[in-house]
Amino acid sequence: MSWIIIGPGRRIPGNAKMRYVAQIVEVTDVEDPRVDDFRDLSTADRRPDRPGGRGLVIAEGVVVVERLVASPYPVRALLGVRRRIEALADLLAPLDVPAYVAEPDVMASVVGFHLNRGVLAVADRAPELTAEHLVATSRRLAVLEGVGDHENLGALFRNAAALGVDGVLLGEGCSDPLYRRSVRVSMGHVLRVPFTRLKSWPDDLDLLRDGGFRVAALTPRADAVSLREAALDSGPVAVVLGSEGPGLTEQAIAAADVAVRIPMAGGVDSLNVATAGAIAFHAMSGI
Amino acid sequence: MSWIIIGPGRRIPGNAKMRYVAQIVEVTDVEDPRVDDFRDLSTADRRPDRPGGRGLVIAEGVVVVERLVASPYPVRALLGVRRRIEALADLLAPLDVPAYVAEPDVMASVVGFHLNRGVLAVADRAPELTAEHLVATSRRLAVLEGVGDHENLGALFRNAAALGVDGVLLGEGCSDPLYRRSVRVSMGHVLRVPFTRLKSWPDDLDLLRDGGFRVAALTPRADAVSLREAALDSGPVAVVLGSEGPGLTEQAIAAADVAVRIPMAGGVDSLNVATAGAIAFHAMSGI
Repeated sequence: MSWIIIGPGRRIPGNAKMRYVAQIVEVTDVEDPRVDDFRDLSTADRRPDRPGGRGLVIAEGVVVVERLVASPYPVRALLGVRRRIEALADLLAPLDVPAYVAEPDVMASVVGFHLNRGVLAVADRAPELTAEHLVATSRRLAVLEGVGDHENLGALFRNAAALGVDGVLLGEGCSDPLYRRSVRVSMGHVLRVPFTRLKSWPDDLDLLRDGGFRVAALTPRADAVSLREAALDSGPVAVVLGSEGPGLTEQAIAAADVAVRIPMAGGVDSLNVATAGAIAFHAMSGI
Repeated sequence: MSWIIIGPGRRIPGNAKMRYVAQIVEVTDVEDPRVDDFRDLSTADRRPDRPGGRGLVIAEGVVVVERLVASPYPVRALLGVRRRIEALADLLAPLDVPAYVAEPDVMASVVGFHLNRGVLAVADRAPELTAEHLVATSRRLAVLEGVGDHENLGALFRNAAALGVDGVLLGEGCSDPLYRRSVRVSMGHVLRVPFTRLKSWPDDLDLLRDGGFRVAALTPRADAVSLREAALDSGPVAVVLGSEGPGLTEQAIAAADVAVRIPMAGGVDSLNVATAGAIAFHAMSGI
């Protein structure tokens, strides 16, 4: 039995296929190959950043699924409990993709774990932007080095989106922001904030300088100027952030125009990298 | 077999008990009642904020254990794998408490889960400070309303410690900052930053005003003044933070002197409360 969504809350039984109309399809068999995109999501081969990974983008929960649908990533399908899929009816109406409806236990067996949020969407990757394009179209950028932790990476994108950063450049040692956990922690903002990977690190910071950017490396070093003194709120600015433990490499700091520190109280090692980023992004915003 | 720690790295076998010297005691029996303080830590009755909770403070990992030992909380005992306990020898030497050493599997069975960090310490609570004392001895305070999430609460304390906030006042609806997960996420800073619970909410904000504080409520409301305009870096200032979803109540905002917002980009709901706190704390620091 399948329905066609023709508008908010209205469904008509039938098998007729219309262009640009999401089809609700009931799934009762755990082995159903039509939901293979959603299978065993916690296993390593589902990680887009690992060899053998399929590179699909997974969105979890209503809010993140909404952001995925509004993003440039081509949605392939949805899988959810009936209540959640119906809540998304308006959003799905213009999409020509299947929306698979399953009971919670069937869904858990397919996905490999119990899913609180009750709905998933899967998308292909969008073509990656070039660094040159991002530099040419932005005024405020975040540049990351060695941010391997998926939650920190997701939180950085959420903070970048909230505080008006135009894009993110990934230097050496960063994880894939499109891994499921990053997407979730970013609350889907990783799908909205444009990003790209730099090819040559840290040499590619020259692309920023050539584009008229001031490049500020964030570091706890005592000889760095304070965030306030650095006055990052004027002109095109890029802030370079390193991972929480080791911080930025010497090479990255040397390749920047200025080393900037967030003044910290005695006896405290560091801030979380996403938190330090948020403080810097707010300082860059100038409002 | 037991050892007495007499200094960095030196141990002598024996049973002699000396004052102010930690005793290393091997534990091989999972049922050993001497490690009952550490038993089944993930069960609800170990939560100090729940009825029936024992109210003990648990520190996990070398860094947090070090902060516990340096705190006003009276340490009762430690439990760890040999390598971790030995790494803490200097710290333990002046303590008159048992340090139980166990194999990883014994430790996991006692605690109820596998422990990556390899060492725990347990302490009694310290007497809680009064709000009047905190107000009289501080220049910058954080006031929390409805922060029920233990991780957010821990992260707020970490950020408060890093950015020079002198103390935290807990209004209505906040969890216990001494719950294990908060202690861990705070990296032990919840044991360093003084805090107390306000008795009457939000009326007790008057205590702050009487103490010469300006009280700033953080809210995304459009009619609030921006963080920059509010110039929180002069004079004694307290910033009031609400939970991530609902934000501050009308009553809390009305009881403050000024409503302050962090300017946000369109299409973004909110920042994490600990992240918003960090931005405000940095603005308060004036450096």
